[in-house]
This record gives sequence, structure tokens and C-alpha cells, in this order.
Amino acid sequence: MLEGSLSIFGIQGLPEICEGDDLAKLVVDALLLRNTSLEDGDIVIITSKVVSKSEGRVIDLATIEPNAFAQRYAQAWDKDPRVVEVVLNESKRIVRQVGPVLITETNHGFVCANSGIDQSSSGAHDRVVLLPEDPDESARTIRRKFRDLGFDIPVIISDTFGRPWRESQVDVAVGIAGMNPVTSYIGEVDPHGHEFLVQSLCVADEIASAAELVKGNVSRIPAVVVRGFSYQSDEEATMQDVLRDPQNDLFR
Amino acid sequence: MLEGSLSIFGIQGLPEICEGDDLAKLVVDALLLRNTSLEDGDIVIITSKVVSKSEGRVIDLATIEPNAFAQRYAQAWDKDPRVVEVVLNESKRIVRQVGPVLITETNHGFVCANSGIDQSSSGAHDRVVLLPEDPDESARTIRRKFRDLGFDIPVIISDTFGRPWRESQVDVAVGIAGMNPVTSYIGEVDPHGHEFLVQSLCVADEIASAAELVKGNVSRIPAVVVRGFSYQSDEEATMQDVLRDPQNDLFR
Repeated sequence: MLEGSLSIFGIQGLPEICEGDDLAKLVVDALLLRNTSLEDGDIVIITSKVVSKSEGRVIDLATIEPNAFAQRYAQAWDKDPRVVEVVLNESKRIVRQVGPVLITETNHGFVCANSGIDQSSSGAHDRVVLLPEDPDESARTIRRKFRDLGFDIPVIISDTFGRPWRESQVDVAVGIAGMNPVTSYIGEVDPHGHEFLVQSLCVADEIASAAELVKGNVSRIPAVVVRGFSYQSDEEATMQDVLRDPQNDLFR
Repeated sequence: MLEGSLSIFGIQGLPEICEGDDLAKLVVDALLLRNTSLEDGDIVIITSKVVSKSEGRVIDLATIEPNAFAQRYAQAWDKDPRVVEVVLNESKRIVRQVGPVLITETNHGFVCANSGIDQSSSGAHDRVVLLPEDPDESARTIRRKFRDLGFDIPVIISDTFGRPWRESQVDVAVGIAGMNPVTSYIGEVDPHGHEFLVQSLCVADEIASAAELVKGNVSRIPAVVVRGFSYQSDEEATMQDVLRDPQNDLFR
């Protein structure tokens, strides 16, 4: 590897994840089967969907009683009223509701389509997968389990979000443990002595996006290792620090 | 390298870029000095600022005559009226103007702060660096020059943008040549037979973000190689395809 280089690889051979699974142990075991292991300085990125499955954050739609609002909206736009009800339950505010598009602010504060719930591969058609209830806490738990196995590894939980102004989606971080999500250049100067106008970079989101590049295929790989990034250790890290205060947000 | 892995490394030792410089040749020469070379399958990501400098997209502020609007706005918020005038000239629409914050739609259609102009390191305090006039064309030119040197290399031109809802910035793609900026999963099914709800991923933006991770330091490295990504070749590629039609944009 060249000096200052990163390597990124997907963790192959993970089983279908079920409630109660220990994701840290599954990752370590899957690497062991390939005669390899985590190393100091590695970061592990895990797709929110498998974290949610391991935490039982899966809803059987048969148990959902949609309210009148959910029923009317679902009927108008050919949606499942039970899914609309779940989207509402997972949100604290509807940011945009235009035609069939429902952009919400989730209970955690993320702004995304449909409160980040996932209908695509929950194991049966009448189930949906929610985002983890507290993705930072999920990341901290997985980090703790890595530590119990002898590995001091920051953990990022990622999800796939759309964005304004640009078509198609990118992966971003929704939970973090063990590293600062942002690298700040405030007060630093460039080689010409100018202060940087780029004040801080959200490396957590950039790492989540980078990780997506090795899992982006039909047999989605749910966990990825980024090796070689000089992260700033931070045991108090939280993605909440990255969420813009709604009072200062020009697009909410 | 493990199967399916990516590696990402910055190109060390590039000189300060001046108007007329051949960036492809400088990249190839810098790698040669380290006894290495581009390989088939590599993607080169170059910071827009050095592309702009090589194209002479640098404005001497002494030549700018700010209009009355620029003067009033600059005075109200302690800005340089000549910089405000340049921001206006580089834009076709002001998307938000709130206090000192000016979010514009650039002449190319990107929505970003201050039309993407850069005051941080243009070589002197009275100069600003604009985005390339046509970043896709810039990428195509650099790609052509790599080809003349014997390397078939897609090129991405990146810039650092803020975003709604989240603090801090990430690198995104503003120009592309030789590869499809988007990977589409429309119509594909997951292992359970469900159609993907994630319909398309903007791999160009994810690659730009990944590349930032190896240049993110005070001695900003302006060019990066991503090795091992299975891109889809596309000689007609353009970042314009990623820009959402303003008519369909809920946040413009």
C-alpha cells in the first residue's frame, strides 16, 4: 500500500441477520473464515438495516391500525396505509408532502424519505424494517462487543438517503461510536497563509459513502472495513452533532 | 488486496498548478517519480480548484466593478462587494439569501454556497478561483490527455459543498468523463425477490467523498486515485444528468 492510502473491503459471507445476533462476533468470525482479521485503525461500517434486524426493529404490518390521515393519503397515491402509519409514527414532523413523496424528520432528527423505513428486504412482504431506535447507541453497543473480542474499532451505521437538488442517492452515517464524525479546519491556514474557507468536513458521511462503493450490488454486503483513515478518537461521538439546528436550516 | 476491495491514494508531489498546465501529464509524472503508475480500472479524481487554475478561471478582484445590489449586500454583512459581484455573475438564480448566507444555482445548475467560488488559496488575497466553466468538458479534456499518454482513465472533478439539514461539508462530483455517474438498480431484485426501493446510487459523488478522505489535511492533495471500483464505461457521461429538474425539486 502506498503511503497515506486507504483500503476498503466488504465482509463476505455474513449470514442473514436475525433478532439477537451479535454483529461484532459475526464480523470477526466471517473475517476469520477468510484467514484475516480486523487491525488497529480499522473502521467498521454496518448498514442500518442489519442493525435494525438484530435489534428486532421489524414491524409486522398486520399489527398496524392506520389512522384516517394515513388511509386518505394512501388511497390518494396508491400506497399501503399501514406503511404510511408506520412512517408517521417514526417521525416528529412532515417536512414535505407533495404527491406521493413524503419527506419527514425522523424521531432522531434525520430528514429523509419515509422516515428511513425499508420495505425492500425484511424477509416477507408484510414486514418493514425501521431505523434503529438510537443508532449512536447501536454503534456504541457494537463497538463494545468488538472491544470484548479484543478489537478497538470505531463503528459507523449507514443508511441510503436521497438529497435535494441532485437525483439518486448516497450512503450517509446515521450512528457513530469511537470517532469524531467531523474533521475541523477552523483556524488552520493553507500553504499561502489563508484561513480555510472549508471549515469542517463530515468524514463520517464520506466514509459511509466510500463503504457503499464496495457493497453496491444486488447481493448487498452489509458490513465494510475502511482501513488506513486517521480518525480522531472520540468516546462521546454522536451523529446528533451533525444535525443542523432546525432554527438555522434554510431548507426545512 | 482482498477480493472486491478498493484502494484510494493521493498523488503526492504535484507542483502548484498554473494556467496552461497539463494535469494529466503532471499526475503521470508525479506517480513515475514514486516508481508507480496508473493501472487499468483506476479512476482519477481532481479537485476543481486546480482544474480551474490550469484553465485560468481565476479572477483578479481589481478588475471587478460591483453593482449597487452587490455593494448594499456586502456592506450589510461585511463582505467584499467585488466577491459578491463575482458570485452573482457565476449564478443564474439566488436560491436563498438569508443574512450573510448566499446559496445560488450556478450557471451550470449546481446549488451551492457562493456559486462555488473559492477565496481560500488562489495565490493572492485579491484573487478568487471560479468553478470550471464546463466541468464535464474539463474532465473530458483531462481524460483525453491521459489517453494520449496511454492510460484509459475515467476522470471526476470534485468540489466541497455544504448540504441542507446537516452541518459540515462533503466532497461531491461536479464534472465527469468516461464513466456513468449513477449505478441503477431499477428493476433488480434482492435475494428475497423484492424489487429494490433504493433505485440508483450516485457513485460519482460517493467516489468524490471517498477521495476527500485521503486529501483531507492542511497540505491538501489535489488529485487522488481510486483503484478497484467496477465502473460502467460511458463516453457520454455528464453530471448534468444528476442535477434534479428544478420543476421536480421540493427544496429549491
